[in-house]
Amino acid sequence: MGEEREIIAVNVELGCDERCEDCERFFECESEKKWEIYHRRRMALARERLKNIRWKIAVASGKGGVGKSTVTANLAIGFALKGYKVGVLDHDFDGASIPTLLGTRGKRLTLGENGINPVKGLKDIAIVSTGLLPQGEEVLTWFHDMRRNATEEFLADVNWGKLDILLIDLPPGTSSDAVNLLQYIPDLDTVVVVTVPSELSQNVARKSILLARKAGAHVAGIVENMSGAICPHCKNVVDFLQKGGGEKIARELGVPLLERIPMEVEVSKASDEGIPVVFKYPESEAAKRYMDLVEKLEEILKKGAA
Amino acid sequence: MGEEREIIAVNVELGCDERCEDCERFFECESEKKWEIYHRRRMALARERLKNIRWKIAVASGKGGVGKSTVTANLAIGFALKGYKVGVLDHDFDGASIPTLLGTRGKRLTLGENGINPVKGLKDIAIVSTGLLPQGEEVLTWFHDMRRNATEEFLADVNWGKLDILLIDLPPGTSSDAVNLLQYIPDLDTVVVVTVPSELSQNVARKSILLARKAGAHVAGIVENMSGAICPHCKNVVDFLQKGGGEKIARELGVPLLERIPMEVEVSKASDEGIPVVFKYPESEAAKRYMDLVEKLEEILKKGAA
Repeated sequence: MGEEREIIAVNVELGCDERCEDCERFFECESEKKWEIYHRRRMALARERLKNIRWKIAVASGKGGVGKSTVTANLAIGFALKGYKVGVLDHDFDGASIPTLLGTRGKRLTLGENGINPVKGLKDIAIVSTGLLPQGEEVLTWFHDMRRNATEEFLADVNWGKLDILLIDLPPGTSSDAVNLLQYIPDLDTVVVVTVPSELSQNVARKSILLARKAGAHVAGIVENMSGAICPHCKNVVDFLQKGGGEKIARELGVPLLERIPMEVEVSKASDEGIPVVFKYPESEAAKRYMDLVEKLEEILKKGAA
Repeated sequence: MGEEREIIAVNVELGCDERCEDCERFFECESEKKWEIYHRRRMALARERLKNIRWKIAVASGKGGVGKSTVTANLAIGFALKGYKVGVLDHDFDGASIPTLLGTRGKRLTLGENGINPVKGLKDIAIVSTGLLPQGEEVLTWFHDMRRNATEEFLADVNWGKLDILLIDLPPGTSSDAVNLLQYIPDLDTVVVVTVPSELSQNVARKSILLARKAGAHVAGIVENMSGAICPHCKNVVDFLQKGGGEKIARELGVPLLERIPMEVEVSKASDEGIPVVFKYPESEAAKRYMDLVEKLEEILKKGAA
């Protein structure tokens, strides 16, 4: 206890120059100011790095398992198919599935002279994901403690280069972390909220939209995923997860229902193969709806969403 | 800064009696010991409260949206139908859906002389959930800061009374929070891990099982949910989310695949109506599989899982 106080005295009281990122006593220092200073400089760096990216779209969902990452991966391919240069920042710590969805198995992030180099996936899409870090039982829980700072690290340290579109796959959840995260992304253009049709899912979708607004972000609208399943045998559409939830919440909160993506055997088959449905089965109903969604978003971005 | 140091001096240096829960300076106190002392006493209280509960089962899933809460709700009803007295602790902060699933709409938790009184749902099931606290935009992010302590609070403060079975619906995720949580539950009997068949979901299911083992918990096995969809028109079974993921992970980690629950229109219809499928549509295939699962778990518990 006595020793710690002495360190504070040395660092802060006897000449702190506020250059925390270079300070050899950074981890020992107990001054609360250090995080504030560190954060400010990291954010300035992030702003600098991200200014070569024309549009930034965050993909959110209150709860997991609604297909947020599948939507993100298909949007990425969709935009790439239209000739855009695309990057994806996968922010889902627990279930980082973007690497698998975009066919990067076996590749890992590398450190270059100008920071972390993204991994290149299908259609030359630049990908950064916690799933691209070394794996092992030791890292299972390691991330918990850096969650708050990981956004800063990712934004400040990745050498994205010049991109037309960066898609940010947000972690599921409606905690204050989610709000902070949205505030950390410099010049975010818009947020797409993914939900499923069941009534139970709408409370979290509502929270997601309210949080995006609280963070001052523009909300492009709602994508209702798993919206009716197409039986490959009889071709009937079956509402396994009920009907109308996305429309209800869109009307209630005054945001557009951008698209309904049906459940099709081709979607998860393509996902497991690491080639999103929009690329692998372009004739499927889901692929057509994704391309329609890409065009709607393109229009919103061109008009200047935020 | 100067004032705070004085408080430390008063509390710790000039006579701390280590009775933190009664200390009027608890929130001002900067001693790191206070949390340790507080935690130890809360856990002793939790142990006392939970000793009137015969069996405790945690329901886990690495990622959200796999139907963990639906499985929990159906297990609760299933055990209740067999004559057991059942309680459910809903630990899902972002998407607390247990209250809706077990038909408690409009009810709220109350504070009694012996602590927090659970809300009574269908079949007299005792329910405690963050979803039963007052709602409003203000509480959207409030919970974030109490997450770590909420487990303690819930376990130490709820007046469960005498129960045969307590089902604990764990939050999704594989962070260190999840490990802590498992360690906080005194005399946990077993853990059921819920997954869906797609390959993409198996990484998180694997993490979930590894974390449960790390926390020293017994793993009863895997429940594969949304395991084949039954088309109500042509009665064919369609594998919208692929096939065999649950079996693969069960074999790999040496745990039983306890049950496969199919996707049926009746399941989500019943969920949205607040009456789980096992109670509302007992003749459905899903309901039959749930009752089979209840019997398998009953056998494991009677043999003494942990």
